[in-house]
Amino acid sequence: MAGYHFGWLDVHGHATKAAAGKALRPALAFACAEAVGGRADDALGPGVAVELVHAFSLIHDDIIDRDQMRRHRPTVWKAFGVPAALLAGDALLAAAHLELTRPSCRRPAACVEVLTQAVLELIEGEATDVAFEKRCDVTLAEYRVMAAGKTGALIAAACQLGALAAGAGPKRAQRLAGFGHHLGMAFQITDDLLGIFGDPQTTGKPVGGDLVARKKTYPVLAALTARTAAARQLRAFYAAEGAPRADDVGQAVSLVEQAGGADAARDAVRQETQQALAILREAVDVNTAAYRDLTALADLMSARTA
Amino acid sequence: MAGYHFGWLDVHGHATKAAAGKALRPALAFACAEAVGGRADDALGPGVAVELVHAFSLIHDDIIDRDQMRRHRPTVWKAFGVPAALLAGDALLAAAHLELTRPSCRRPAACVEVLTQAVLELIEGEATDVAFEKRCDVTLAEYRVMAAGKTGALIAAACQLGALAAGAGPKRAQRLAGFGHHLGMAFQITDDLLGIFGDPQTTGKPVGGDLVARKKTYPVLAALTARTAAARQLRAFYAAEGAPRADDVGQAVSLVEQAGGADAARDAVRQETQQALAILREAVDVNTAAYRDLTALADLMSARTA
Repeated sequence: MAGYHFGWLDVHGHATKAAAGKALRPALAFACAEAVGGRADDALGPGVAVELVHAFSLIHDDIIDRDQMRRHRPTVWKAFGVPAALLAGDALLAAAHLELTRPSCRRPAACVEVLTQAVLELIEGEATDVAFEKRCDVTLAEYRVMAAGKTGALIAAACQLGALAAGAGPKRAQRLAGFGHHLGMAFQITDDLLGIFGDPQTTGKPVGGDLVARKKTYPVLAALTARTAAARQLRAFYAAEGAPRADDVGQAVSLVEQAGGADAARDAVRQETQQALAILREAVDVNTAAYRDLTALADLMSARTA
Repeated sequence: MAGYHFGWLDVHGHATKAAAGKALRPALAFACAEAVGGRADDALGPGVAVELVHAFSLIHDDIIDRDQMRRHRPTVWKAFGVPAALLAGDALLAAAHLELTRPSCRRPAACVEVLTQAVLELIEGEATDVAFEKRCDVTLAEYRVMAAGKTGALIAAACQLGALAAGAGPKRAQRLAGFGHHLGMAFQITDDLLGIFGDPQTTGKPVGGDLVARKKTYPVLAALTARTAAARQLRAFYAAEGAPRADDVGQAVSLVEQAGGADAARDAVRQETQQALAILREAVDVNTAAYRDLTALADLMSARTA
């Protein structure tokens, strides 16, 4: 199941080449290890660990959200059933910790602590997101707290662990966690934009998918604060019960745009990215290849289409 | 949800005193720390960790098995819903690892490795148990491998971690793991007996519960190997489809007994307990309070009624 999730195996366990994840979190861990003067190899354990935690969270979130498709293929629970998928996620979470006990990892206790705290924040973020579904009064401030947990925490941990594994002091590693936090916020809000306006061919998710599920994402919450006719209509769409019709979903996509939700989200992505880069410049030498790699990753994460 | 599971809170989050778990795994960790010459306090982190892993596994297993009652109360998923229960289990698994990073824990990396390997074996055991449900040809040998993972691994880890945390060498800690393994087997087979013959008032589980679910437990598998009329009738009960009638369950309880399943299981409990104690006598000084505590725990685990 893990091999299937990573795109290496088909549902029968035979080798295949399906669309894989972007492995952004390991890339950040490796680049942060280099940015503090170490080698990418120093962060091999943490890099694998954060990707395994990411896989665990996707597999469990898909069970919770009942999402049926990911990366153009049935989700793990859809392909193998809920019991098996639940256990596969559990195993990936456990295996992540095992990666931090490799002999190459300096300070294993500190690394386990950072990873586990991130996992707990991630779980709390996901739980808050699930709770949002039953609420009509979610604010942008509440969204930020949720996204900081659900997405920011693990990306922050990837950066922090990469630095720690390469021997950085706790303060410098903490700064790189700050870089990762803002990057994670930019990443999540970009994800929200793709969940409404993304091309299904590229994202592998249904058109307007997040609106079908009436998710309270950044563009929607920003649009709902407007005092315009479009915002009022969007509020009505969100207050309605039962599965929405395809026509209504299409119209809701336009309403989010008209009420300024897309622009507000794009502004937020820009701001978070700028904050991330400002912290990065204080934490690492800007005249290094690692700095350039990290800025390239930051661009990739906030300007992506899938 | 964790507080509810542990019996400290009711479903609304108010303090209560419901039936709690027996905390056998922490007790083993503490006693093993003392048995190798350390203090029970040395094993505080590991003791909490193994209990949190145990709680995680029960909460997720109840989701998987759709079990509705535990310790006379609705299971966590039944009380709070599957998504919340799934995340609560995840959080407990993550928090378990955090306990091993306490400053009091010597060799945190070795401890994380032992705990995580045990968690992986536990998950594989649970997955095998789930797979047993769809099979009619499960052997006692296969059962032993499954039970060694599902139950033996964490009890072995509790003993090993207690010893490691108190500064025992890896070989001595490994021996105590062997003690825990056999104890775990005795514990699981005792659990199987209670799942068929236990008093619902004491166990908090329905009468003949494991037979209603047609689980392939030790007494059943042992009974099915007999060449008697009772064994044949039991085979027919296990081959039938659909929910069995209460009468048939009552009769199946008698058939397991008549075909020698209960006696075989009681023999196996005795043998496993003896093997556990033989290993224990080689690993620790028998003239200590810790040795007497461990033998008392071994008796408790194989002679329990709930």
